[in-house]
Amino acid sequence: MMLNGKMVIGWQRVRGEGGDFYAYAPDGTVLEELSFGGALSTDLENAAVLAAGAFDAYRQMDAERRAEFLEVIGEEIMALGDALLERAQRETGLPRSRLVGERLRTANQLRLFARLLREGRNEAAVLDSPLPDRQPPRSDLRQRRVPLGPVAVFGASNFPLAFSVAGGDTASALAAGCPVIVKAHNAHPGTSEMVAVAVQRAAARTKMPEGVFSLLFAHDFTIGGELVQHPVIQAVGFTGSRQGGTALLHLAQARPQPVPLYAEMSSINPVFLLPMALRARASDIAEGVAASLTTGSGQFCTAPGLVIAIDSVALEQFTKAMASILPTISMGDMLTQNIRRSWYAGIGRLEAHAGVVPIVGVRDAGDGDGVRGVFYRTDAETFLSDPALEEENFGASALLVVCRDEEEMRRVAEYVSGQLTATLHLEPDDYELARRLMPVLERKAGRILVNDYPTGVEVCDAMVHGGPWPSTSDSRTTSVGSEAIFRFLRPVCYQNLPEELLPKCLQRENPRHVWRLQDGVPSC
Amino acid sequence: MMLNGKMVIGWQRVRGEGGDFYAYAPDGTVLEELSFGGALSTDLENAAVLAAGAFDAYRQMDAERRAEFLEVIGEEIMALGDALLERAQRETGLPRSRLVGERLRTANQLRLFARLLREGRNEAAVLDSPLPDRQPPRSDLRQRRVPLGPVAVFGASNFPLAFSVAGGDTASALAAGCPVIVKAHNAHPGTSEMVAVAVQRAAARTKMPEGVFSLLFAHDFTIGGELVQHPVIQAVGFTGSRQGGTALLHLAQARPQPVPLYAEMSSINPVFLLPMALRARASDIAEGVAASLTTGSGQFCTAPGLVIAIDSVALEQFTKAMASILPTISMGDMLTQNIRRSWYAGIGRLEAHAGVVPIVGVRDAGDGDGVRGVFYRTDAETFLSDPALEEENFGASALLVVCRDEEEMRRVAEYVSGQLTATLHLEPDDYELARRLMPVLERKAGRILVNDYPTGVEVCDAMVHGGPWPSTSDSRTTSVGSEAIFRFLRPVCYQNLPEELLPKCLQRENPRHVWRLQDGVPSC
Repeated sequence: MMLNGKMVIGWQRVRGEGGDFYAYAPDGTVLEELSFGGALSTDLENAAVLAAGAFDAYRQMDAERRAEFLEVIGEEIMALGDALLERAQRETGLPRSRLVGERLRTANQLRLFARLLREGRNEAAVLDSPLPDRQPPRSDLRQRRVPLGPVAVFGASNFPLAFSVAGGDTASALAAGCPVIVKAHNAHPGTSEMVAVAVQRAAARTKMPEGVFSLLFAHDFTIGGELVQHPVIQAVGFTGSRQGGTALLHLAQARPQPVPLYAEMSSINPVFLLPMALRARASDIAEGVAASLTTGSGQFCTAPGLVIAIDSVALEQFTKAMASILPTISMGDMLTQNIRRSWYAGIGRLEAHAGVVPIVGVRDAGDGDGVRGVFYRTDAETFLSDPALEEENFGASALLVVCRDEEEMRRVAEYVSGQLTATLHLEPDDYELARRLMPVLERKAGRILVNDYPTGVEVCDAMVHGGPWPSTSDSRTTSVGSEAIFRFLRPVCYQNLPEELLPKCLQRENPRHVWRLQDGVPSC
Repeated sequence: MMLNGKMVIGWQRVRGEGGDFYAYAPDGTVLEELSFGGALSTDLENAAVLAAGAFDAYRQMDAERRAEFLEVIGEEIMALGDALLERAQRETGLPRSRLVGERLRTANQLRLFARLLREGRNEAAVLDSPLPDRQPPRSDLRQRRVPLGPVAVFGASNFPLAFSVAGGDTASALAAGCPVIVKAHNAHPGTSEMVAVAVQRAAARTKMPEGVFSLLFAHDFTIGGELVQHPVIQAVGFTGSRQGGTALLHLAQARPQPVPLYAEMSSINPVFLLPMALRARASDIAEGVAASLTTGSGQFCTAPGLVIAIDSVALEQFTKAMASILPTISMGDMLTQNIRRSWYAGIGRLEAHAGVVPIVGVRDAGDGDGVRGVFYRTDAETFLSDPALEEENFGASALLVVCRDEEEMRRVAEYVSGQLTATLHLEPDDYELARRLMPVLERKAGRILVNDYPTGVEVCDAMVHGGPWPSTSDSRTTSVGSEAIFRFLRPVCYQNLPEELLPKCLQRENPRHVWRLQDGVPSC
C-alpha cells in the first residue's frame, strides 16, 4: 500500500491539519518527503463521537463476530506482507527476523483473544440460584462482565507491532467490546498507518460499526492529553516512559470522571545470582544475561538492568565472562536518536559515579557498526545509598551490585522499587536463600523467574506483564496475556431477570456452553 | 465489656491524645461522660509499622489459619451479645431487629470469605504447561494472586456493623491477606471500639501476628488523610459521601506511589416503571417502592431515590398509592443530626424548585415520633435540564420523573450518572421496551433488577455492589460479595520455578485441590 500520512477515523482517511511531522530512520535522517498530519481537536472529537456511537452495537454483537473481527485484523496485517516489515525496519532499525517474530506474536495475540471470546471467558459468568424458602428469601442473582467503553491506546516505541496500533492493548480492548482510538507513536508513523489501514479493512470486511477503531497522529503532546481527558474515553492503555505515563495518569485522574489508566512504564528487572548457581555455571549465566540484555538493542521493558550477587571467586568468573562476551554481541541501532542520546547520558552518569566501575564500559560500547552493551559494577552499600543508581537506563546497560553476604542481598531485594520481573538463578542448595527472597520478590515484581531470562514475554493465560509502582500504574493487572482483557471490563449483576432479558452467557440452559461459577462451583 | 474510649493498636489499647470527642444519640444528645481519644500521627505510625511488619507472616499463613481467624472474629462479635446491639442502637437509632440482621450478615460475610480461602478461590490459580519443543520453547508459567499490602478502611455511618470495623471491606482485605487499619466512623465510636476489641481478641486467640488489625479514632479529618497517604498503606476502602470519597481519592492519587481507593459514594438508584407493569400492579409496586425507600430511614446506599414512568392513568394510581402508603410508614430517627439536617436541606431545595411538586411533601414528613418518607414529582424535561435534581439526598426522599413517551424514558436513562443499581418493573408486554433500556442501564449501573427492589444487598458470588462513577470510584469492583476480595489482590506469574519453591496452590499435584485454570480449562 501507498502511505499518504493520513489518519484513520472511522471509514475515513483524514489528513490532520494540526501540524506536520516526518518519519525518521534510527540514525536521525528523514525517511522521505511524505509528511504525516497531526490531528486537530476536531479530528479527535470526530473519532470520539464515532467510538461512542459504535459502542453499544459493537459490545452487544455475538462473540463469534467480534472474534472474527480480531482474526481478520491478523489476516489483514499479514496481507500487508513484506512492505510492512520493510517499513517497520526502516523506521525502527529492528532486525527483520525480530519483526517477523513480532508480527507473528501480534497475530497470535489477536487469535488468543478470539478464542477467549468464543469460550466466553471474558464474561466471567457467575450464577447464584434463588433461595425462595430462606428468610429473607434470596433472589436469582447472576453476574457477567461488560466493557467499560471506548479506550485510548498509546503505541509504544519499542514494539512497533505487538505493543502498538494493533498490539496487546488494542487487541484486549477490542476483545472486551471497547472501541479503540490509537495515538500513533511518532517513532514509526508509517508502520502505524499501514497497520491502522489493515484494522480499518478488517472492520469493513467483518461489517463492524463505524468508529470501532480510529488512529490519530499527533504533532505534539496536546492531542494525547486531550484524548485521555475526553469524556467518551473510559480507559487508557499506555506503554512508555515513567515521565510520559505519570503525566497521562495525572490527566486521567484529574478528569471530572476519573478513568483507569494502565501505564506500563519502567523496570530494571533485577537478576539475583545465588551462590551455588554462580559456582556451578557462572559462564552460562553470563551468556544468558548478556543475550537477554542485548536483545532488541536492550530496548525491552524486561531487559535485565540489575544483577545482584554475593562477592565470591565465582562472581569474578561471571564478570570476566561478561567482559568477554558482551563486546562480541553486535546490536542494531537504537530506535531513535533521542533514545540513543538518553542511553548515552545514563551511561555517562554511571561512568562519572565515584562508586561505580566499568566491567564493560562506554569505550568498549560504541563503534562504527552499532552499539554494544555496557556493564558496570558497584557495591551494595553504594547502591543502597543512591537512588539514582536504581533509575532505568532504557537500553543495553546493566549494573552489577556486589553484596557482602546473603543478608545484604535480601536488603537490596527489599530496597528496589516495583518491577515487571525479578529473576533468581539457583541450584537446589540455594533454595533456603531463595525461600527468604521469595516473599520480598512477590511484593516487588509481577513475574518471578528461576534459571531463565526476563526478556521474551509469553502471550498466555498465566502471564503477568505488570507489577507494583513504578513499573506500572496499576499492579492489579497485566498488559500481556489473556488477563489483560479484564482491564477493560466491569462486573454487572442481574437480579431476578426473566430468561428473555438475560444475556446468553447467563441463561439457565447456557446455550453458549461457557464456563460459569454456578453456586460456588465452576461448571460448563 | 466496658468501653474506655481507647483505640486498638496491635495488642495494645491506646488512649489517643489527638483531641477528644463524644458519642451522640441520633437526637444530638451526648450519650455519656466517656470521651474517645483521637489518634496522633504517632499512633498511626505505630499501627502502620505493625501492619507492615505483620504483612509477610500473615499473607503466607496457611489458608486454613486465615479462615479460622475470620470465623473467630464472627464468634467474638457474637460473644459481645446484647451489649453490642444496645450500644449500636443508642449510637445509630437503628431498630434492634435491623441490627440483629446486620450482625448476622457481618458474621456470614466473614464465613463466606473463610470458605473462599479454604477453596483457594482467592488464589485464582492459572497454569500453562511448558512447550519445550515449540520454537522458541515456552517455559512453565503459573499465576496466582497475592495481597497488595496493608489496607485502610473507613467505616460507614449507615451500617455500624456490616460496613464498618469488621464489615465487608475489612473482611475482604483480611481474607486477601492484607493487614487492616480501620478509621472508626465518629457516628458510632462505642460500637467501633467493641467490635475492634472483638477483632483484637480473635487475632490473639488464633495467634495472628501483631498488627494484623488496628483501630484508630480521629478527632477531625487530619488522621484520615494521613492514613490514606501513609506509604505503608497499599489500598483503601471507603463507604460514604461523594464529597468525602472524592477528597480521599485525590489524596490516594497524589501520593508518590498512587494506590487504589475503593470509594462507594452516592447513588439515586433509578426505578423504571414500565407501562404494562404499572397497569397490572400499580399499588403493589407503590408498596414495594415505599418499603424499600423507607428501610433504615432511607439511609441505604441503594434506596430508590428516582422513579421514572410514562404519563398514564396507571401512573396516577401509583402516585395515589404512594401518597396514601408513605405517610403511614413510621421511620426511626436518622443516624445523626448532620444527616437529618442535610436531608431536610435537600427536601427544602426540592420544595422550592419551580418544576417540582410534592406527592408526599415535607409537611407530611416530619412529626413527633420520627420522620416520614417524602416523594416529589417532576417532568422529564425539567429533570433533564437541571443537574441538581439528580443529586443524591441521603434519606427517604424520592423523585418521580414523568416522561411523555418511551423515547423520553430512554433519554432519562441515558442522562443519569453512574449508579449502584437500576430497577425495571415490567410485564412480558414490556420486554420490547426493556430490551431498549437494558444496554443503557448496563452502562449506567452495577446491578440491574427486575420486579424487585434495590435495598437488601445479598452477600454472594454474583453480587455487584458497585457501579460507574460517581456511584463508586472504581466501576471494575464490588464492595459486597466474594468478588470484593479481588480489590486487594494482584497477579504474580511464576516462570520455571521448581516445585519446592512454588506456593501450594500452584504445585503440580495441587495438594489443596483448588480450582485452577489449567492450559485454558478449569480443573480441580
